[in-house]
Order: sequence, then C-alpha cells, then structure tokens
Amino acid sequence: MSCLFCGIVSGEIPARQVYADDHAIAFLDIAPWHVGHTLVIPRRHVDDLVADPDALSEIAPAISATSRLLVERLAADGLNVLSSNGAAAGQEVFHLHFHLLPRFAHRSGLAELFKREPGIDLDRVHRQLVGNPQP
Amino acid sequence: MSCLFCGIVSGEIPARQVYADDHAIAFLDIAPWHVGHTLVIPRRHVDDLVADPDALSEIAPAISATSRLLVERLAADGLNVLSSNGAAAGQEVFHLHFHLLPRFAHRSGLAELFKREPGIDLDRVHRQLVGNPQP
Repeated sequence: MSCLFCGIVSGEIPARQVYADDHAIAFLDIAPWHVGHTLVIPRRHVDDLVADPDALSEIAPAISATSRLLVERLAADGLNVLSSNGAAAGQEVFHLHFHLLPRFAHRSGLAELFKREPGIDLDRVHRQLVGNPQP
Repeated sequence: MSCLFCGIVSGEIPARQVYADDHAIAFLDIAPWHVGHTLVIPRRHVDDLVADPDALSEIAPAISATSRLLVERLAADGLNVLSSNGAAAGQEVFHLHFHLLPRFAHRSGLAELFKREPGIDLDRVHRQLVGNPQP
C-alpha cells in the first residue's frame, strides 16, 4: 500500500472513523493538536487541492457535517479548518486532507493552533463522538 | 454597514478582487502573511462554517479555482487553506472566510504560516493575478 490514507479508506489500515459518506471519510488524527482533531479525506486518491478542482466540492458536505458533529459533541468554542497542499505548505501525506481542529476557550487563538495538547485519550474522544445518543 | 465583508460584497468597501462567481468572491487580504494571501467569502452573510451546513459547498468552487489561480500566477510551491470559526479559533471578522495562503520554498512549513512577510506590494501582486494574459 503506497498511500497511507488510501489504506485507511480501504480498511486495511485501522482508524477511529467519526463520519463517512459516498465521497469522503473522517477519522481522528493519531497525533492530535487538540481534543477531537479530525482529518477529512476524499475516498478517491487526490494528491492535493490544486491538482484536482472538483475534490473540495466532493468533500465539502463531509467537512461541514463533521465540523458540526465535533463542535456539538465536544462542546467546542470554535473550530479551525486547515489544509496543507504541497511540501512547502507542510503537507506530509500526499492524499488531500483537511484538518478539523475543535478549539476551546482555555487554549484559544491562532498562536496556539499547532501546540499539541498532551494526554488526549483518543478512545475516549472517539466514544464521545460516535457513542449512542442519549435516550 | 455592520459587516465589513458584506460591505466588500456590495462594493461599498473597496477590495483588490481576484475572483468572483455567483456565490463567492475572493480578494487580497490587506495585511498579508504571504505574497498572494487571499480571502474567499460567500456573497451572502454566513457567520461561520458551523452555523450553516451549506455554505462550504457554495464557495468550494471559488476556493478551488482561486487556489489554482494563485499557484499558477505566482509560481507558488504550495498553498495552505485556513478557516477560523468562532473567537476561540481566532476569527476576527464574523462573516465566513477562508484564507488561501500561497507558500514558497524559502519560507515553508507550518511554523512559518503566521509569520507576516514584510514589504509586500499589494497592487503589484494584484496586477500579477488579474493582469491581461500573455498574448
């Protein structure tokens, strides 16, 4: 498997999935900067946003729905959306992805965006996002 | 005029526009972090991405087309896309906007993303983006 994210789409590589539709999946980043840090990717392989003018339209509904899910379920105070396209922009996995970063008042603002919050329990966050709704 | 970006959409507030379609406009940020720093906004007033699940789909074609324009015309090596939703995420103008940030090899990576490049000539950049195509 040459592309990590194609491996996640196919199910060969496990991921804590939080949303899926016909065009996109969303899963928790394994090295989160903030509680609920999630990646949204197209199911088909697209290198980046510039390489394919249709890719963002395909995954826009997934970005919007997952953003709302994260803010509501985690009671976030805000949310950043970030995509890095090309190595000069900091892209490390060359399959288009959008970071969704829930933000909280106690660690707010752009200056804190890339500071990794220590001690996040990914399994606990995942249960909070996909667990059964309250009766 | 209570919303700065609604004022730009209506034309009451001038801006260096680089792209427009039925749903969105794109214009140069007046305090750029990088050469070609552009904002893409919906024509209609939407507070943020979480407030309106349809807004991103409406402006996705404009984000993609403007991204390609910036990379091609400025010969950029990469591009970041960033949106801040809510004050905790660093949002300052409460009309949904996506920053498009062309990136260049000599100032690359996420650590440099928020560092303002001094001395950018906005009128020159604007001409480079919207000037007549080569014959």
